[in-house]
Amino acid sequence: MGRWEPDARGRLEQAALELYGERGYEKTTVAEIAQRAGVTERTFFRHYADKREVLFAGSGLLRDLLVKAIAEAPEGASPLDAATAALEAVGGVFEERREHARRRQVIIDANPELRERELIKLASLASAAAEALRERGVAEPVASLTAETGIAVFKVAFARWIDGTGGSGLSPFIRESLGELRALTGTSRHAVGRP
Amino acid sequence: MGRWEPDARGRLEQAALELYGERGYEKTTVAEIAQRAGVTERTFFRHYADKREVLFAGSGLLRDLLVKAIAEAPEGASPLDAATAALEAVGGVFEERREHARRRQVIIDANPELRERELIKLASLASAAAEALRERGVAEPVASLTAETGIAVFKVAFARWIDGTGGSGLSPFIRESLGELRALTGTSRHAVGRP
Repeated sequence: MGRWEPDARGRLEQAALELYGERGYEKTTVAEIAQRAGVTERTFFRHYADKREVLFAGSGLLRDLLVKAIAEAPEGASPLDAATAALEAVGGVFEERREHARRRQVIIDANPELRERELIKLASLASAAAEALRERGVAEPVASLTAETGIAVFKVAFARWIDGTGGSGLSPFIRESLGELRALTGTSRHAVGRP
Repeated sequence: MGRWEPDARGRLEQAALELYGERGYEKTTVAEIAQRAGVTERTFFRHYADKREVLFAGSGLLRDLLVKAIAEAPEGASPLDAATAALEAVGGVFEERREHARRRQVIIDANPELRERELIKLASLASAAAEALRERGVAEPVASLTAETGIAVFKVAFARWIDGTGGSGLSPFIRESLGELRALTGTSRHAVGRP
């Protein structure tokens, strides 16, 4: 194997998902992943810090997309509009990726350490989104509330997309969840006071 | 020390918080906590599985309160009304507990393992609330979305309460966050379609 490996990263990710599915995450070694992908262990470690990181390497991209979309939302956009734009941007990444996402989720759901890692990553996405909203001039608690609510919408939409059988994209599920959010906060019968 | 220790549990919790604050969570041992509380290690282990559990023992109570309040909300209550009742019930637990909650949060924020544990507990509260809503006949995705959004409201309110200097109760902060949630979902300028 030469030093130039076209899409070694993609092949490593594919090999890891296969092996985690076949043998379980705990029992799979980096050496096995590298072998399945046809690269050296050294190549593995050029791309990923460890075998867990293969499953979470995408979260940096998601964070960058969220932050960029919030920063670039039109000047007069409301906080929720900016968050909606961010969720749309994230939704686009997952087009045609449902089978991949589903396999990844099965592996994560089977392992408490990976589930914790997933929650941490989601919490850090919420923090990054709240920070991006504050940089647009959105005050607290609205910035954090919008960011946390946006992540709630994303979690619910993602779970339904993974379980779903309809169209392949995540975006319609995000739009559905946003619509449900508006409906559920709009139809409540009791007014709520401020402190 | 006899076998009958009045409020040994409360004293153990108090001693643990003091020691975690003074020496750090990692460096504190169960033996030290028991000694500070004036009980035996055996008594410690009758109340808590390990030193981490001292910080999270309240989450079972919170889950029970959430589930009960959702189950007992009036028949015609909307999902968000049921969730609001649940958050009000939880808010009541924290009356006069801000100093305690603040000290606990400083310890948790300083330790990645404890932060992960906190996120897991919050995620399991959301799952329990969603299940309680489904038992009221609330369909998905509304049940999960309401539950996740309710936890988002709780997180934001809790963080502001901890940082705050105003009244001592959590409830006004929960009402503030719920009001902000309604405002932010109501004032967005673009309609969102359903898939």
